[in-house]
Amino acid sequence: MQTVADELAINGKRARESARALARLSGQVRELALTNTAEALQARRDEILSANDLDHQEARSGGLSDAALGRLLLDEERLDAMADDVRRVAALPDPIGETFDMRSMPNGLRVGRRRVPLGVIGAIYESRPNVTIDIAVLCVKSGNAVILRGGKEAIRSNKVLAALVRESIAAAGVPKDAVQFVESTDRALVGRMLEMKEYIDLMIPRGGAELVRRVGEEATMPAVTGGVGVCHLFVDRAAEVDMAVALVRDSKVSRPYACNAVDTLLVHSGIAPAFLPRVARELTGAGVELRCDRRALSILGQVEGLRVIPATDEDWGTEYLALTAAVRIVDSVDEALGHIDTYGSGHTEAIVSEDYSVAMRFLDEVDAGVVLVNAGTVFNDGGQLGLGSEVAISTNKLHARGPMGLRELTSYKWTVLGAGQVRG
Amino acid sequence: MQTVADELAINGKRARESARALARLSGQVRELALTNTAEALQARRDEILSANDLDHQEARSGGLSDAALGRLLLDEERLDAMADDVRRVAALPDPIGETFDMRSMPNGLRVGRRRVPLGVIGAIYESRPNVTIDIAVLCVKSGNAVILRGGKEAIRSNKVLAALVRESIAAAGVPKDAVQFVESTDRALVGRMLEMKEYIDLMIPRGGAELVRRVGEEATMPAVTGGVGVCHLFVDRAAEVDMAVALVRDSKVSRPYACNAVDTLLVHSGIAPAFLPRVARELTGAGVELRCDRRALSILGQVEGLRVIPATDEDWGTEYLALTAAVRIVDSVDEALGHIDTYGSGHTEAIVSEDYSVAMRFLDEVDAGVVLVNAGTVFNDGGQLGLGSEVAISTNKLHARGPMGLRELTSYKWTVLGAGQVRG
Repeated sequence: MQTVADELAINGKRARESARALARLSGQVRELALTNTAEALQARRDEILSANDLDHQEARSGGLSDAALGRLLLDEERLDAMADDVRRVAALPDPIGETFDMRSMPNGLRVGRRRVPLGVIGAIYESRPNVTIDIAVLCVKSGNAVILRGGKEAIRSNKVLAALVRESIAAAGVPKDAVQFVESTDRALVGRMLEMKEYIDLMIPRGGAELVRRVGEEATMPAVTGGVGVCHLFVDRAAEVDMAVALVRDSKVSRPYACNAVDTLLVHSGIAPAFLPRVARELTGAGVELRCDRRALSILGQVEGLRVIPATDEDWGTEYLALTAAVRIVDSVDEALGHIDTYGSGHTEAIVSEDYSVAMRFLDEVDAGVVLVNAGTVFNDGGQLGLGSEVAISTNKLHARGPMGLRELTSYKWTVLGAGQVRG
Repeated sequence: MQTVADELAINGKRARESARALARLSGQVRELALTNTAEALQARRDEILSANDLDHQEARSGGLSDAALGRLLLDEERLDAMADDVRRVAALPDPIGETFDMRSMPNGLRVGRRRVPLGVIGAIYESRPNVTIDIAVLCVKSGNAVILRGGKEAIRSNKVLAALVRESIAAAGVPKDAVQFVESTDRALVGRMLEMKEYIDLMIPRGGAELVRRVGEEATMPAVTGGVGVCHLFVDRAAEVDMAVALVRDSKVSRPYACNAVDTLLVHSGIAPAFLPRVARELTGAGVELRCDRRALSILGQVEGLRVIPATDEDWGTEYLALTAAVRIVDSVDEALGHIDTYGSGHTEAIVSEDYSVAMRFLDEVDAGVVLVNAGTVFNDGGQLGLGSEVAISTNKLHARGPMGLRELTSYKWTVLGAGQVRG
């Protein structure tokens, strides 16, 4: 009898073998594989949506949270958006083969570095079926094979989507085994997958803090650790109040469930009386719960009709992933920097200030993947920062930091063209 | 009583704290720290050499191998060479602060990536005291703090060298604690050091295969795996014989103990009768032991006065680090590629050929850190490839591959300059 571990090893072997073939295909072939996938997402809409409907029904009766149900659900509009995303990735410049740092050495050796695929990417994710397409497409475009392991809530949707990708890429001449989907939903598989360093070159967890933590601790291969964003926005004394209100609102309300949403608002005491009541009205009006330190409470307590609650020590350093924000008043940029240093997760940190020197200090001294001046934390996003797409947001310092696009899924090899030089 | 683990944690804390200060110092200050170090290496020559003499005496009576004794020994000439190397690194362009991929997005956001130090580097090495200077200097130049743990054979030399670096950098304004030297030679320390992921961002093992393997398996932080080079040189049918002989000799005899020395010579059967006797005479004349497959034996067995021995299965895939080479005859470039794929360590692979298509195929298809055409494996070296210096040679695909110089000791952060843009 075949065990699930055997099954997984077969996924691994097939991915490894296909990676070798995939690495040699032209960018044209990989692009066509993606265009085919985009078309199939629209042509096979009914099949996808009915599988998704079954997943959704079962998950709802199983008591999945509304937020998770929302992430699981597909509809025509979402499928069209997914197809558009795939076409956009297809059209991005090919990252493979690009040669950089090319130079002639004094002895005439021609030295350069050429971008090559990493090999096999492993992806473990939760209930969002669009991640299946997202990651498969980024991997194929960057010449990598991939082993996908999605959550059991979306298993029917994911099976259909994975089969669709495999057929679409095969029609373009990419080996269909370059995209492996783990069909078993046995939880023990995750542990086994994290041991498969012979088959997987980089592991990407896409999901909640618990998944990211587990992968970071147990993976025997390199893994992207990221996704956990304890993000701060510091409103300096020299901030423009209107701009600060708009940026805070944008960073808290537009995508509250995303890792780049702001969690803690740090407000300079010199601007707090003018700024805090306005931003608090705006945020609470949009349904945000504000958890305030003593000094912020004393200002906001006097605003009629406003309901805010006291922060506890646990609020500092918490990623809410919800319509909740902590508020703290600080007396200087140093105090803001100290708070961020203590409680930040190295993900995204922003300042609003018209004071050039303060803004530059923040930019220089904050140690995070993305540091922003007069722009909200929501801009930590591969699309917004010009990568075209993103496979994850890394808080690692090795290899890639911040949003990871196609180039961040590559390695390089040194190429040396000689004419018989000896070193002696 | 203070345990060694406590002591190590103190090293860790001091390095971590200094890293923050170091990251903010100007390139000028870091350069001066290195110039001071170079001067001190020459000014304090007697002190260094007498400590080294004691190490050397003890190691010799302890029965250390000649090769290891050679690596341990310092003399005036080597100290001068070390000082020159330090001056060369001092003069290299500052990798920190460089901003790349700068662009303006359609909404006006100015986005870029700015190079920053990794933080704290850990280095574990063996009996070569010059590694103490090497790594400390590369780390300071790249804005990183470092924790050095050298082999016990060189403990006296290393203590003097580490103290010298600490004083030299302090005189320039770099915190002396940015360079930590682990004074205890307790072997248990290595295991503890590999657990200190809270203090060490990247671990670099510099030494034999056993050390590299152990670090790769036990390190809880990212580690460079490399240094183990099972290197092949393929002499194609279309090789120029004179060039091939010269490159093989250069790659085997000039630095037989280095990881980039050639281990297995693959020879196309079409050129073997003309090439093998010549290269065999050259190599055996230089003291190289040749271990040949059956077909190579049958050619070389007929050469008068030549002594070669049969290869066993263990020879394929062996890194000799000695005046030994395996020889195998292949019938095609495919067979050579297959052999390299099976037995190579992804370190350095070279071809000698005047056939353009064969050379390009080799360059495209070999999956290794450095791939060379008509140049020997000895050119896999940071200095030779234009990095100025190297901290290690990586066979990882993540972060850095091949020789790692200053830039490979950095990360980056994304910087975003806005004017109040919202994402909506």
